[in-house]
Amino acid sequence: MVFEMPDLPSGPLDHYRKKASFNWKDMLIFIDGEEILQFKQQVFETLENDPVFARRPGEDIPLKRMRELTFLRVKQLFCYNFLPKEDVMANPWKTVVLTDCLGMYDWALVAKFFLNKGMFGATVANSGSSRHNKYVESTEDMTTYGCFALTELSHGSNTRAMRTTATYDSSTQEFVINSPDFEAAKFWVGNLGKTATHAVVFAQLYTPDQVCHGLHSFVVPVRDPKTLLALPGVLVGDMGKKLGQNGLDNGFAMFHNVRIPRENLLNKTGDITPDGRYMTPYKDPNKRFGASLGALSGGRVSITRMSLVNLKLALIVAIRFSATRRQFGPKDSEEIPVLEYQLQQWRLIPYLAAAYALEHFSKSIFMNFVEFQIGQLMRDKSDRQEALGREIHAIGCSSKPLGSWTAQRGIQECREACGGHGYLAMNRLGNLRDDNDPNCTYEGDNNVLLQQTSNYLLSLFNAKHRDGLRIESPLHTVDFLDDYQKILKSRFTASTMDECMNSAVPLAAYRWLVCFLLEESQKRLEQQRALGMADFEARNNSQVYFCRSLAIAYIEHNCLQRFYELTTDPDTPASLRPLLSNLCALYGLWSLGSHMATLYQGNFMSGRKPAELVQMAILTLCSQLKDDAVALVDVFAPSDFILNSPIGCADGQLYKNLWSTVMQGSQVLERPSWWKEFCSDKPVVGSLRPKL
Amino acid sequence: MVFEMPDLPSGPLDHYRKKASFNWKDMLIFIDGEEILQFKQQVFETLENDPVFARRPGEDIPLKRMRELTFLRVKQLFCYNFLPKEDVMANPWKTVVLTDCLGMYDWALVAKFFLNKGMFGATVANSGSSRHNKYVESTEDMTTYGCFALTELSHGSNTRAMRTTATYDSSTQEFVINSPDFEAAKFWVGNLGKTATHAVVFAQLYTPDQVCHGLHSFVVPVRDPKTLLALPGVLVGDMGKKLGQNGLDNGFAMFHNVRIPRENLLNKTGDITPDGRYMTPYKDPNKRFGASLGALSGGRVSITRMSLVNLKLALIVAIRFSATRRQFGPKDSEEIPVLEYQLQQWRLIPYLAAAYALEHFSKSIFMNFVEFQIGQLMRDKSDRQEALGREIHAIGCSSKPLGSWTAQRGIQECREACGGHGYLAMNRLGNLRDDNDPNCTYEGDNNVLLQQTSNYLLSLFNAKHRDGLRIESPLHTVDFLDDYQKILKSRFTASTMDECMNSAVPLAAYRWLVCFLLEESQKRLEQQRALGMADFEARNNSQVYFCRSLAIAYIEHNCLQRFYELTTDPDTPASLRPLLSNLCALYGLWSLGSHMATLYQGNFMSGRKPAELVQMAILTLCSQLKDDAVALVDVFAPSDFILNSPIGCADGQLYKNLWSTVMQGSQVLERPSWWKEFCSDKPVVGSLRPKL
Repeated sequence: MVFEMPDLPSGPLDHYRKKASFNWKDMLIFIDGEEILQFKQQVFETLENDPVFARRPGEDIPLKRMRELTFLRVKQLFCYNFLPKEDVMANPWKTVVLTDCLGMYDWALVAKFFLNKGMFGATVANSGSSRHNKYVESTEDMTTYGCFALTELSHGSNTRAMRTTATYDSSTQEFVINSPDFEAAKFWVGNLGKTATHAVVFAQLYTPDQVCHGLHSFVVPVRDPKTLLALPGVLVGDMGKKLGQNGLDNGFAMFHNVRIPRENLLNKTGDITPDGRYMTPYKDPNKRFGASLGALSGGRVSITRMSLVNLKLALIVAIRFSATRRQFGPKDSEEIPVLEYQLQQWRLIPYLAAAYALEHFSKSIFMNFVEFQIGQLMRDKSDRQEALGREIHAIGCSSKPLGSWTAQRGIQECREACGGHGYLAMNRLGNLRDDNDPNCTYEGDNNVLLQQTSNYLLSLFNAKHRDGLRIESPLHTVDFLDDYQKILKSRFTASTMDECMNSAVPLAAYRWLVCFLLEESQKRLEQQRALGMADFEARNNSQVYFCRSLAIAYIEHNCLQRFYELTTDPDTPASLRPLLSNLCALYGLWSLGSHMATLYQGNFMSGRKPAELVQMAILTLCSQLKDDAVALVDVFAPSDFILNSPIGCADGQLYKNLWSTVMQGSQVLERPSWWKEFCSDKPVVGSLRPKL
Repeated sequence: MVFEMPDLPSGPLDHYRKKASFNWKDMLIFIDGEEILQFKQQVFETLENDPVFARRPGEDIPLKRMRELTFLRVKQLFCYNFLPKEDVMANPWKTVVLTDCLGMYDWALVAKFFLNKGMFGATVANSGSSRHNKYVESTEDMTTYGCFALTELSHGSNTRAMRTTATYDSSTQEFVINSPDFEAAKFWVGNLGKTATHAVVFAQLYTPDQVCHGLHSFVVPVRDPKTLLALPGVLVGDMGKKLGQNGLDNGFAMFHNVRIPRENLLNKTGDITPDGRYMTPYKDPNKRFGASLGALSGGRVSITRMSLVNLKLALIVAIRFSATRRQFGPKDSEEIPVLEYQLQQWRLIPYLAAAYALEHFSKSIFMNFVEFQIGQLMRDKSDRQEALGREIHAIGCSSKPLGSWTAQRGIQECREACGGHGYLAMNRLGNLRDDNDPNCTYEGDNNVLLQQTSNYLLSLFNAKHRDGLRIESPLHTVDFLDDYQKILKSRFTASTMDECMNSAVPLAAYRWLVCFLLEESQKRLEQQRALGMADFEARNNSQVYFCRSLAIAYIEHNCLQRFYELTTDPDTPASLRPLLSNLCALYGLWSLGSHMATLYQGNFMSGRKPAELVQMAILTLCSQLKDDAVALVDVFAPSDFILNSPIGCADGQLYKNLWSTVMQGSQVLERPSWWKEFCSDKPVVGSLRPKL
């Protein structure tokens, strides 16, 4: 069966679509492939045809109703069961595609759906043992509705400092869960606000002898599944309104002598004998802690992708708007699309290039992660598997900042690039900004995470110096660093703009940059230690301008490198390669923009020419790509129903769509209910004027 | 009577307050003075004591209710009449202070209040004549409720392209107002959604001979003041939800043969005789147009200040949070406030320095604007007055981008710096971001406005070259440019970090930078013209990296220069000068950060040292200022009621305040209304699975 890709509706966007240098359907097939395209279309159509998923752009929905709607939609997702287990096993990428599709509709829905099975269920499965299967199984049909309770009111990043306790009582063979005070209340837990029946609770495990064995996870029932009322000793509630994702009920819980059976300890990393002795397969408590948090891996790779989806949606809206919005022109009588302005191109098209770079990058690191996961499932204890784990960790800890910040800035630029119409809720840019924002924070604050990446690079650098070890890694993201002395001698050599419009130029600059920042970061650390600082302080004082920049440059280089490899891959259709190469070069040069001072400072660049060449190459690439921009966002675009933005519809009928959505608003032409008070009860000016 | 400044409540913030290098009350007196402090306190207390202004942090209020509440509060402001006309005349600054105070509470309230009197009323007064006094007077007690209708659905920036028509019918001595189609519907008009009874409508004036005399403004009744129902021929309604400022009812209007008396033409710049002849005191239609839009001046200066207020509020929240939130530490047992981390300091303290720079800057340019306004009132037709007008225009067109972008980025940084708690609506950072966002767009898109500023600078530059005129201006913001050749020969000369920690260093760099960008912009324009481009295209292709950067550098330099002058002013208390000097140096060095590549590119800097010195000076200044940071935001802080952010309260009881606000939420501990459906009606997994 051959999948038929629907054509796009004709309209004002035809002008640019006809000018595109490539066939957008070829690109779509290249990126997704027919099977995925069919799957996406099926999901989109299913949602559009189901009244439970009906919505109007920009409608004002009360918080309570949003939570209810999200619950109803989650339930419907169980009925649709778009992705049975066997399909996931056959093609793990489909999980990401489904997340993309549902996230394009609403991220809160995705979160509410996946936190139960993907977070609660998977954590119980991975950290527990066969005795916990019943919990995993009962999440399958919402009989158990789970959540993941790690963070507390006063602790987020410092997970080890969690203060909830689980004290073993051997007389009843139970754990007693307690929150010492409200600052230790579990906080921010998705699904806990209104619906969770069970929580994976992280708590300090105490044996009856009052010895603390560190953080462990426990399955704790919090609400009666028959009534949704809180169980005795559990104070559980809703945190209230957030900046976005309000369909998800984030909540809190405090525990007062809540007793759970001994078996509810998730016992992979440590267990308790009935008489209260602690047993663990791990000798090093640090390793044990690391393993118990291992279930968190993968989240950051997913967030990188989620951020990209938000960026794509914003770009679809902003590019289609810019191609149809006309303002000013060479003559008063003739206005041109704002996309024709160099400034507008420069504001938007580099983000479009970034979206294509991140499209490939997020897919590629997901596949790396799958490789790692398979190794774990196979109980691979090899050095390579261990090194792969460390590398994936370094990648995820920097890919999340790269993705989420690029999206956050890009969405804001798109919002502003659409002017006032971008500020209208119905056009969705605010929703995208608000829903993307937590990607910068959860699963680790971006700035804190970047330290993990720089620590990884510095440890490789040190191992080379201390032990003469080669700098290399299973995915080869660091291999070039072994040559750092030679690379540091390289210089910017491009002498024409044409030469500069090639990815090789930013790639070479990035290689130099990462080496430079690595060496400088190491020097800075040594210098701080030489001043007598302890490691904690020395590291804290080496982040700004050093380790933080290093981690960012490392991941930008890697993202660029992978994209470059795609553009030169023989499997990449020749008809698309020139376009992808331009996008790749633009992404690289533009990203380099924030590092130009460093390139000069370290003498990789000098004099007027290099910056000028880079700038002119960026502007030229933007101008070359502007006729492809509409087709490039067509490739990303879901159906209009999913995109849900009148100024971003595929037919390009900007004003018609905007106007009709405004006119369909609730009580749009009605006078307000308080019109009598307005008309008849006029204020007596100064009647309440305060006396001094 | 001596004003007594209340002390701040004791608590966890005492630690930093005691370490402050200055007395925060001295700073408050220096910045505001006793009269203003008393006025502010009066406004704050009045709002807090009035149940109409009661609110709960983070509450979920439906759009309809927000509009009603804002109406009720506006009415109350009429009763309070905080600022009778005579007080404004005695001290025009008080208008700004009142806006600050009310804006700290809610910007939609300010907009709804001021659009009636300040925008509708003032435009009628300034663009009309004595025959329009009745409209101005009836705004005083809400009998008339006015709005300002310029923008149309398909035109914003290009105001001349508005398509609404006003055709004179001499047989009835009326104008007939028409919207040719819905793309010409007036759109985005504040107050028009639900409450406006009258609008100043901008329309193309046609005489009976079908000659168009350009854009003019007319008073058009839109709703019956007795019923709030739309008048015949007027289609008027509510645009719906926006990203923020939802208390304000932005609306649209279409006119179908709406007849208004001849006298409703605001006739300052042109009038119609009863028999339909057009008369104007202006010969040049361009000048006429400029004059008719003159009423818009001042708005941009105000927006600069409004943005600053948002930045201040966000900083109060983020700094107080950072001083009380503890996470990690040198030992596991001892956690330190996150403000102690260099990275956190570097993220927040430069914005604090920017807030102090903008505090003085926004006040100072407001005073310049008042000087200009007085000249206008005095009918000053001197060259100086004309030059002052042009300079103020150049300042306003760049100060708005500087203020609004600094605030937008700063608020986002504050949001992220507060981690998850920053994402909770009750802590208000989302509200600040959403309410600040339109400052980037209205009264002219930031990027479009910057062109006005660079055009001004380039015209001065050209006049020097073409006519040998000295580059100078009434406020001296451009005077240094006359020396540009000499300045371009200057180089970065600081050789130690101590030397670098002085505002003289960034000031010298900015002088060079503005000269460099001015010369480069001119070259670029000439080069584009030499390629055969018309002026429209040449200018469009000279914005990125040239004219746009020029305008930004010019205004940053001016902001820095004014702050520097304050720190050296003999009237500035000696006890505060060292601190202000540090803030000034930090602001300058940090702002320079985005121009470092240009400084290298143009050879103002070379080699490793300069960037290193600037970076180390920034970090050192941040570290020196971190113990003052809490006291520095105490200076800005309104009462807790106004700030409305549990994590930002003056007592620093971060968790107590947050927890109690969460617990006071609506239905926080209740199960959802749909609990039965959740508990009893479980989904049949896959029952709706789509067939392929």
